[in-house]
Amino acid sequence: MIIVDSIVKLKEIVRNNKKNGHTIGFVPTMGFLHEGHLTLAKKARKENDTVIMSIFVNPLQFGPNEDFERYPRDPEKDAALAESSGVDYLFMPSVDEMYPEEPAVALTVKKRTNVLCGIKREGHFDGVATVVMKLFHMTEPDNAYFGKKDAQQLAVIYGLVDSLNVPVTIHGVETVREEDGLAKSSRNVYLQPEERERAPALYQSLSRLKESIDSGETRIERVREQAIDYLNLHSGAEIEYLEILAYPELEPIQRATGTIIAAAAVQYKNARLIDNIIFTVKGRA
Amino acid sequence: MIIVDSIVKLKEIVRNNKKNGHTIGFVPTMGFLHEGHLTLAKKARKENDTVIMSIFVNPLQFGPNEDFERYPRDPEKDAALAESSGVDYLFMPSVDEMYPEEPAVALTVKKRTNVLCGIKREGHFDGVATVVMKLFHMTEPDNAYFGKKDAQQLAVIYGLVDSLNVPVTIHGVETVREEDGLAKSSRNVYLQPEERERAPALYQSLSRLKESIDSGETRIERVREQAIDYLNLHSGAEIEYLEILAYPELEPIQRATGTIIAAAAVQYKNARLIDNIIFTVKGRA
Repeated sequence: MIIVDSIVKLKEIVRNNKKNGHTIGFVPTMGFLHEGHLTLAKKARKENDTVIMSIFVNPLQFGPNEDFERYPRDPEKDAALAESSGVDYLFMPSVDEMYPEEPAVALTVKKRTNVLCGIKREGHFDGVATVVMKLFHMTEPDNAYFGKKDAQQLAVIYGLVDSLNVPVTIHGVETVREEDGLAKSSRNVYLQPEERERAPALYQSLSRLKESIDSGETRIERVREQAIDYLNLHSGAEIEYLEILAYPELEPIQRATGTIIAAAAVQYKNARLIDNIIFTVKGRA
Repeated sequence: MIIVDSIVKLKEIVRNNKKNGHTIGFVPTMGFLHEGHLTLAKKARKENDTVIMSIFVNPLQFGPNEDFERYPRDPEKDAALAESSGVDYLFMPSVDEMYPEEPAVALTVKKRTNVLCGIKREGHFDGVATVVMKLFHMTEPDNAYFGKKDAQQLAVIYGLVDSLNVPVTIHGVETVREEDGLAKSSRNVYLQPEERERAPALYQSLSRLKESIDSGETRIERVREQAIDYLNLHSGAEIEYLEILAYPELEPIQRATGTIIAAAAVQYKNARLIDNIIFTVKGRA
């Protein structure tokens, strides 16, 4: 595995791979890799000739009161994990390399943002879209891999690619979970022991919600209220939101139909956790 | 030459050309082709294996009171001219093909816009950046060709490519002029006979300005005033602006140094004309 920190060098590598007819799979991350990221890398490894992973904690997508400075970083461990997952090129640029000056052109995401995490994170998805657009241009991937855990981010990326005709195929990859159901996340390290014990209630509430719809309940507001009650009773966290929406449009629905997402965010003392379930309601129009 | 109106078809053509290792030169236009456009196409022909030209009058870059509806169109003549200039693929999409719905992601140009034509054309360069970004993604060119006549547009495209790391080389191509110096433009057809006679004063004022600086004058405000006086005396048009700025930054300067642009816009009865000279001030730091 080759570690690259310069955009010029990365572009040269990409150009050579293209010249040789190699397909490129790309996995953008913010590092502090866990099994979720490695699943993306392994899928990219299976489906492409060349695998590029990026690790870049993107300041543009953090709000002024968010955790950019204390976002966990462990570049050496990350490099070892990336290599063991079949990554060929690990791109780890500095902030100055990515943003030598304020960008002359800003991307603004107009749809799918004013719900879920977007409400409290103004400008967050603009920052995501900008850095992903830059990284796509640097890596020119045939395939790019994103976790379904960040389901709203994935919906925004689908919108970006559709709107701007980006020549890349986006793959949404299933969330990887701990044995007790808690979604893997770089932020789980901030949970206190008692919080960690109760945190699986997040996924449980969503699973029970899905079961309820699968069993025939169509009233969105009713299953939503039940899930909120469950979370209040079991999670020990403050609920930021729990919503059921059409996916990937992220528009409100009254009745369970089509492909939907049930998504929630909860706040523990030092950790904000998100989780979701995306599923297609069967047999009902 | 093959005419293409579908994005899917265009992308397939691009993919096949890439697979065969062909370099792609791209010439985006709004049609009603004149010698200026054909110069771009011929340069693309010389420097690339495959030449794609697009003709698309982009509604996104016209303001509500601008001339989108009456912008001149002549697709049949355009096709003949494109073919005779060596274009391989002429992409002529409908507005619905380019914008099936409102884009989920908007591009906003933050620099180089609040001067020259940008002052009166709010949002114009956002529309230009968006359509060019889409077209670049569809055509994946190695080289793209733009006229220096639209010098601010060219500066914005340089900014777009730098900011978002777009993998394309931008070529700014010299303005093609009538024998009397008037820059070729699709909008010249709207000039009345007497206006057409006086219109070369626009280029003359800029040429005299350059001569003055070449002869040693460094005071920007002085040469600017002289050029405005000349235009007022000879053009018979209303002056919208005449500015001398650093290029491509489009930032104000006090003294003539480095690479600069002298640019002007004038309004005749039914035609707004623009022109410019870009040059490097020699021998002075």
